Amino acid sequence: MGKFIVIGERIHCISPVINKAMQERDPEPILKRAREQIETGAAYLDVNIGPSEKGGEELMKWAVTTIQQACDNVPLCLDTSNRKAIEAGISVYNRSKGKPIVNSADAGDRIENIDLAAANDAIVLALCSKAGISSDNDERMGYCQELLERGMGLGMDTEDIWFDPLFLVVKGMQDKQMEVLSFIKDLSDMGLNSTGGLSNISNMMPKHIRPIMDSAMVAMAMYCGLTSAIANPADLRLMETIRSCDVIKNNTLYADSYLEI
Amino acid sequence: MGKFIVIGERIHCISPVINKAMQERDPEPILKRAREQIETGAAYLDVNIGPSEKGGEELMKWAVTTIQQACDNVPLCLDTSNRKAIEAGISVYNRSKGKPIVNSADAGDRIENIDLAAANDAIVLALCSKAGISSDNDERMGYCQELLERGMGLGMDTEDIWFDPLFLVVKGMQDKQMEVLSFIKDLSDMGLNSTGGLSNISNMMPKHIRPIMDSAMVAMAMYCGLTSAIANPADLRLMETIRSCDVIKNNTLYADSYLEI
Repeated sequence: MGKFIVIGERIHCISPVINKAMQERDPEPILKRAREQIETGAAYLDVNIGPSEKGGEELMKWAVTTIQQACDNVPLCLDTSNRKAIEAGISVYNRSKGKPIVNSADAGDRIENIDLAAANDAIVLALCSKAGISSDNDERMGYCQELLERGMGLGMDTEDIWFDPLFLVVKGMQDKQMEVLSFIKDLSDMGLNSTGGLSNISNMMPKHIRPIMDSAMVAMAMYCGLTSAIANPADLRLMETIRSCDVIKNNTLYADSYLEI
Repeated sequence: MGKFIVIGERIHCISPVINKAMQERDPEPILKRAREQIETGAAYLDVNIGPSEKGGEELMKWAVTTIQQACDNVPLCLDTSNRKAIEAGISVYNRSKGKPIVNSADAGDRIENIDLAAANDAIVLALCSKAGISSDNDERMGYCQELLERGMGLGMDTEDIWFDPLFLVVKGMQDKQMEVLSFIKDLSDMGLNSTGGLSNISNMMPKHIRPIMDSAMVAMAMYCGLTSAIANPADLRLMETIRSCDVIKNNTLYADSYLEI
């Protein structure tokens, strides 16, 4: 097994600082977050430009080239509902450190993002949902199969489809957590890669609790076979937990310095 | 599912302070550790008097009555290789807050501790080993069956036999960790209770790493169905992780104050 992959989530237009930098094409605030995330252990960086219906193509191209040129071609996850903007980003993307990731497809309106990934030799995040949250694991698995077949039919390697079970908020859906973990186990048993927005689970919790809850969840999810997460690599407790689970799973060799690597 | 049970490990004759207090029948150092462990979340307290071949019966009686009288009859885990000392402890034990635990039986020289527990309506910790570390899960399961059948044959409730897979040290046996976890899952699938000395896994690691590694492991083990551990409840990170996993598993209802309860 390979090491767990953290996709850094902090280049996101929901942040006022990042949004302003994107609008003004000001590289520094974005590169600062890029470097911080790489230093703290992100393997990929998510670049979320929002819907960007106007000007999204040009913005994504600028973001991709700006970040990759300054950060040794760090691999990126292109995150927007504007499909043309993702294609534009891929057109200028440097693959030397890894394929681009298309964020994201689902079994509903966004299913054509599978086609986009297949046509561009990209990885795709595939949400096991259609319209809203799946009601149970049978429904999740139905969508998984649909997305998997579509990708395979288009010649994709199954390892390039990273299935997202959708992590659910504990406050409100506490009784669904083990079901989501069980689904991750099913994906793993099928040999499939998986990912997701882990910190969804701790939404609406007091700020000091979130890293504690997220860390407990990531350890359980890694036991189940989760191979990646979209997360904040500046969350020290989370990253320590991920590195420890990689040791326990024998994905990385233990050394007394393993937390610093 | 009930909440995860922490058996506090800190009343142990290997500690010079505790050893001296035991020899001098000085209650205060022992009661201080008892109270600290109860306050930080131990449900049971382990009382380890060592081999105590001479005077063990009288010492265990003194320890049991001293701790229970001062601490509202907190339930105890009687830990010694001196079988008569365990029997003596049980003879003065107050069951109002829970049965005594016999620590421990195995499939080798200590198998008669199953009989001792059965004869005294006690819980028993049952190590899935015979002479040294089991080589694989088939061997562990063989001993588990042997211990289970012996207990059931003597009329014990299966829930009173808490199986210990033996946690193994990562430094040296890194590649065995997932096997131990898988065995815990097997025990859980059989409806059996489980426990163990969790911090074995981080033996010989730098001190600041141990709570991090132990916490990652306990979360994975709790996903697999571990129901209890012999641990240090003063390890804040470990206890936060256990409480969070109890929430994720829906063993306890989430409240914003759940870490303080």
